[in-house]
Amino acid sequence: MVSIKFKNNKLFYIDQTMLPEKEVWRKCSGLSSGFRAIKDLEIRGAPLIGVFAALCLYTVANDLTFSKGRFLKYLDNAINKLKSSRPTAVNLFWALDRIKGVIDANKNKDVAQIKKAILKEAQAICNEDVKLCHNMGEHGAKLVNKGDKLLTHCNAGSLATAGSGTALAVFYRACAQGKKIKVYADETRPLLQGGRLTMWELQKHKVDCTLICDNMAAFMMQKGEIDKVFLGADRIAANGDAANKIGTYSVAISAKYHKIPFYVVAPFSTFDLTLKTGESIPIEERKPLEVQTVLGKMRIAPNNAKVRNPAFDVTPNKLITAIVTDRGVIYPPFAKNIKKILG
Amino acid sequence: MVSIKFKNNKLFYIDQTMLPEKEVWRKCSGLSSGFRAIKDLEIRGAPLIGVFAALCLYTVANDLTFSKGRFLKYLDNAINKLKSSRPTAVNLFWALDRIKGVIDANKNKDVAQIKKAILKEAQAICNEDVKLCHNMGEHGAKLVNKGDKLLTHCNAGSLATAGSGTALAVFYRACAQGKKIKVYADETRPLLQGGRLTMWELQKHKVDCTLICDNMAAFMMQKGEIDKVFLGADRIAANGDAANKIGTYSVAISAKYHKIPFYVVAPFSTFDLTLKTGESIPIEERKPLEVQTVLGKMRIAPNNAKVRNPAFDVTPNKLITAIVTDRGVIYPPFAKNIKKILG
Repeated sequence: MVSIKFKNNKLFYIDQTMLPEKEVWRKCSGLSSGFRAIKDLEIRGAPLIGVFAALCLYTVANDLTFSKGRFLKYLDNAINKLKSSRPTAVNLFWALDRIKGVIDANKNKDVAQIKKAILKEAQAICNEDVKLCHNMGEHGAKLVNKGDKLLTHCNAGSLATAGSGTALAVFYRACAQGKKIKVYADETRPLLQGGRLTMWELQKHKVDCTLICDNMAAFMMQKGEIDKVFLGADRIAANGDAANKIGTYSVAISAKYHKIPFYVVAPFSTFDLTLKTGESIPIEERKPLEVQTVLGKMRIAPNNAKVRNPAFDVTPNKLITAIVTDRGVIYPPFAKNIKKILG
Repeated sequence: MVSIKFKNNKLFYIDQTMLPEKEVWRKCSGLSSGFRAIKDLEIRGAPLIGVFAALCLYTVANDLTFSKGRFLKYLDNAINKLKSSRPTAVNLFWALDRIKGVIDANKNKDVAQIKKAILKEAQAICNEDVKLCHNMGEHGAKLVNKGDKLLTHCNAGSLATAGSGTALAVFYRACAQGKKIKVYADETRPLLQGGRLTMWELQKHKVDCTLICDNMAAFMMQKGEIDKVFLGADRIAANGDAANKIGTYSVAISAKYHKIPFYVVAPFSTFDLTLKTGESIPIEERKPLEVQTVLGKMRIAPNNAKVRNPAFDVTPNKLITAIVTDRGVIYPPFAKNIKKILG
């Protein structure tokens, strides 16, 4: 299962807003197209946004017929434009900064050579992501026992990465090891990534999965139905505070209350070591319509209902049992151990 | 604002499944009609179900032309049928048992006199509920300070009672006292009573209200946006454990974590002193379609997605700051103080 395809210098992606009803593949046809695809969540998931932005930038570069000065200036603006699509996930900035670094390092070469260097780097980011997912799956699956009942939130799977996922990679690996797990997926309002995307891909992978509303997670924990929580992250500060989809914080508090292990799964590229704590992670506030309606299609509140719509929250490190990365599992004290493994 | 009307021996109610789009009044046209209205949540809210069932039973009785033996037998079955509509809220059983008591006490009288006695009792239950709401509002409003930011879950208002509500009665009273509160309403998946009903009636009452998804409540608490939580209950055990709409338990855990007062507001008729703890409160599990779709109208998960759909959860007494009743505010130790005030 893949969520993007890169063929003959063209970038294609599953429009995730159409799932689970239809698997619609779209072509990313330029800068505005790529920007909009990220902003409108046709493509989402922290690692995937990074990979997609890098490949999108290459397609943009490849189509340019400018002389070098204008070419470089255009790409500089294109990078900034793509970076402005979403503020919270750091992988987007990380991937585009890698491309920027390659452009800078090759700026004395001719345009064709710079294009080639961008392509190489974008493809490397994509291929690396597949490996990161594989490694997170390996490390995380060691934390899963046979018969475990596992909760996840939002979508941290094949649809959120170029590979098998972050949290869901752990589930896929555990299944492959014959561990017969049972997964509960929070539906994840307002945009229902759990109900639409996680359930869709878990069913595709034939994982035993059950959908619950977000407000049922604590009840399931109380009833002994959840042994462990595994979910992704959009940005992790140097002290282990982790930003992830809205509702993660609530799950973390409930897990702590029930003494249930709470694991965040993310590759090294999700860490932002420039931030001491999670307090300075910018939280995207999205448009009211997402809460007033279901996916813009069905109104579920009175007209003009005032709403709040933070798309992410920050879970403080003290609520996190461990962070599963591609380089191994990081336990508290996080500040020290994150530095040791990733610093 | 009223949610039911009883006129010329006919019972009318707002079909709450049609809100907030349309305010549709329906007539309860007999036993099956009343049973279905409760089961399908056209009428809901623990106190209102009790009032409605009592008045429904009177309309059923009033239409009967049987001789006394068959009349009494029919009503006995009718009471059992209405009791089987929903299992969790205790007010339904309480109200019907009151009617049953009146029937038993008058069983030596003629049918016309028994009908009259049922009418009197049903109207008493209805009128008393209005007073209970008023009293809960009075007692609860003392806990509200000027400018408080208050969270509620599901709908515990005019649409859940024959009067001004339980938790929302507190808000209405506080507003009338000029306290300028700000209310956050959890949307309350799967059936969205918060988004559809609470927002609708708070707007009608011109209360400053903001809708959030259930999974945002903890985030709002973290940001200092919630000073206190007020919500209703469907059944409260002798030790103060309180069953209420699914998601209440999650809010209670988050409130405890953030040291935010958590108040349950309910009339004496919501207490079930035959239950020592909340563990034996039966939890209604409703049909999967409610989670797989939004209000049966829009599918949001793959076909055949397995789901869990508990309609209620039980919040243990240790997470409850106080219970606001029509007879005053009950603080811990609950077992002792509930007995003192209600026993």
